[in-house]
Amino acid sequence: QIDSARLWDTIHETAKFGATPKGGVRRLTLSTEDKQVRDWFRKACEEAGLDVHVDALGSMFGLRKGRDMSKAPIGVGSHLDTQPTGGKYDGILGTLAGLELVRTLNGAGIETELPICICNWTNEEGSRFAPAMMASAAYVGDFTTDDILSRRDAEGVTVAQALDGIGYRGDAPVGRQKFSGFVELHIEQGPILEAEGKTIGVVDSGQGVLWYDGRITGFESHAGSTPMPLRRDALATLSEIVLAMESIAKKHGPKAVGTIGEAVIAKPSRNVIPGEIAFTVDCRSADAAIMDALDRDLRAAVAEIAARRKVEVQLDLVWRKAPTHFDPKLVDAVENAATQLGYSHRRITSGAGHDACNLNTVMPAAMVFVPCKDGVSHNELEDATQADCAAGANVLLHTVLALAGV
Amino acid sequence: QIDSARLWDTIHETAKFGATPKGGVRRLTLSTEDKQVRDWFRKACEEAGLDVHVDALGSMFGLRKGRDMSKAPIGVGSHLDTQPTGGKYDGILGTLAGLELVRTLNGAGIETELPICICNWTNEEGSRFAPAMMASAAYVGDFTTDDILSRRDAEGVTVAQALDGIGYRGDAPVGRQKFSGFVELHIEQGPILEAEGKTIGVVDSGQGVLWYDGRITGFESHAGSTPMPLRRDALATLSEIVLAMESIAKKHGPKAVGTIGEAVIAKPSRNVIPGEIAFTVDCRSADAAIMDALDRDLRAAVAEIAARRKVEVQLDLVWRKAPTHFDPKLVDAVENAATQLGYSHRRITSGAGHDACNLNTVMPAAMVFVPCKDGVSHNELEDATQADCAAGANVLLHTVLALAGV
Ligand SMILES: NC(=O)NCCC(=O)O
Ligand SMILES: NC(=O)NCCC(=O)O
Repeated sequence: QIDSARLWDTIHETAKFGATPKGGVRRLTLSTEDKQVRDWFRKACEEAGLDVHVDALGSMFGLRKGRDMSKAPIGVGSHLDTQPTGGKYDGILGTLAGLELVRTLNGAGIETELPICICNWTNEEGSRFAPAMMASAAYVGDFTTDDILSRRDAEGVTVAQALDGIGYRGDAPVGRQKFSGFVELHIEQGPILEAEGKTIGVVDSGQGVLWYDGRITGFESHAGSTPMPLRRDALATLSEIVLAMESIAKKHGPKAVGTIGEAVIAKPSRNVIPGEIAFTVDCRSADAAIMDALDRDLRAAVAEIAARRKVEVQLDLVWRKAPTHFDPKLVDAVENAATQLGYSHRRITSGAGHDACNLNTVMPAAMVFVPCKDGVSHNELEDATQADCAAGANVLLHTVLALAGV
Repeated sequence: QIDSARLWDTIHETAKFGATPKGGVRRLTLSTEDKQVRDWFRKACEEAGLDVHVDALGSMFGLRKGRDMSKAPIGVGSHLDTQPTGGKYDGILGTLAGLELVRTLNGAGIETELPICICNWTNEEGSRFAPAMMASAAYVGDFTTDDILSRRDAEGVTVAQALDGIGYRGDAPVGRQKFSGFVELHIEQGPILEAEGKTIGVVDSGQGVLWYDGRITGFESHAGSTPMPLRRDALATLSEIVLAMESIAKKHGPKAVGTIGEAVIAKPSRNVIPGEIAFTVDCRSADAAIMDALDRDLRAAVAEIAARRKVEVQLDLVWRKAPTHFDPKLVDAVENAATQLGYSHRRITSGAGHDACNLNTVMPAAMVFVPCKDGVSHNELEDATQADCAAGANVLLHTVLALAGV
């Protein structure tokens, strides 16, 4: 059994790095706040006897020796970055539960057969740089390291510059650290476990993701003197696209979601009809056929709206992640641990993307979910109970012990 | 007859202050570029023998003596500020035609009975500070000088600070400079004159304006894991409001317009459902009853959308300007001048707001319109012909001569 109070205190200790007035965390990847939590994490790992190294994309790995050092370790962990107005648990719980697991093993003097490696993956959130789960995507070969290093944030800063800026561009080539398997603990970020009164989600699948960059080019004109029928209004166009995305997603019931999260009017003015807008689209499904339908329906809707309104709409797919089906053996291992520990549980699909979804394409991977309050995440009000966090960490511990061998 | 080439050259000489790559002008009120054009204008007025003074809100007045100095002058002019991506004619034509008129009278050695005063009114555009036509509104007593001095731009800079920053906070109390009447020349900023092949618009009325500040408070949440039915999406809410405004305005045919020109998502992120958006609304009609209907219908639509989507929408009316009915005698004077000069003309309603609309509430005022290309304004591509600008300046000259007496 892990130490529930120690885990809880550690989570709240890190929440000070980028703390927001409303009780959330703003710790954008590779920012000053991210450096602070990374420095803290490196020190905590070293104090727990781990051997820490950093790869070329800033992902951090803390290795606990096993009896058989010829075998690759079992990986645990998640990420320490957050959304612009994120919470105290998204990512952090999984990373610090890894630390707690090591502290527990150290305290009990338990040696495992396989080594154990705690990971902090760079830019899981995808808010500052696209795509999300950028470092684990490069790890599995979806992108080259150089491609990722050249990605830019909204201010034009590259990943390479941001890494150098905080001193976290490591020596290890991306992908060099191998794993025998990977288990990630995370808050659900959705409402299902809470609604059903279950403590543990045994994650067997994850939604695929489509990310688009869009640009609408209408025509700026005077808001007072331009007759309604002559307008080529970029914001009215965007409005139709937003509502089209919403109804396309709703058509597939609970099996799809679609969101426009960013929209910026170029040179806005009260009395000027918006002429140009940049926007992004995020849509998802766990069903590959529905993903194809989302893409098709969205493109058709956009084309129809653009033609009718006589505006230009460019829509570029910038990221496509296929749905995830986690490794059946590891999923069973998670389920067994939950059952043995006596926690109520159910199988569940992850709505969010996670580094484990990427890693699952090259190694056996699985995930453990615990409930979060009202299913709310990517919000400063994100909340979870100490008991649920501890339950998740215990399931993680017992799964890892089963996989690593005592 | 004014000197068409001299007027044209002068317009293009000032277009360098804030020139944009696409051939437009960015000269936000009280900016560095505005100071440049003001300095230029002051010098040009002084060289034309005018006595220049500046009032407490930065409006500039250049006085040409008349035989009877006991009478208040006939005012002409407009404004020298522009939209963020504005054109070379909006406002500038009317101000520089005033200068051209004085140069013509000087050249011909013509003395008028009443004095003539060329005006450059501060912040006509309303893009940096609200409301539009701010200085002339204070002139007629719609706002106190102190109220206007304390208005802030998006960066929090007050009008007072901006005036001091460029050295244009004058000594003269707002309203001290009296006028016997005011005539403003302007490009139409709409498509009617061009479509009908008319050279001169005899402006007999102007649309009323409603300006609102809006704020939507939904709930930020994860774009991947938040089911569609549980969302409280601020951008989807805004989208419905934009389309509602559009259809409310369209319902009144050509007699109303409605625009959302600004919309800013607080802390946007690709994979976060927007939780908070600030926006502005501009809607107009020349018919007071329709203005009431626009306000009523917009508020009803917003209330319905907010309730259905379980979000909060605040909608504050920040400016209401009643429709304008220009002084019949001055309108006739404009029409007579156009007829005598042999220009094709028609009566017309102004879609845009103008300083003359404010001034008309305390003195006889009227306006002269000339066509602009494709009716486009508040756009860098705004264009007008040399012949039309000269025709407008000639109508202005002859109207002023009729009012000021030779
Ligand atoms: N878990 C999580 O919030 N990941 C961020 C990437 C995404 O799913 O949008
Ligand atoms: N003429 C003009 O463009 N005025 C700006 C104020 C407005 O009508 O919105």
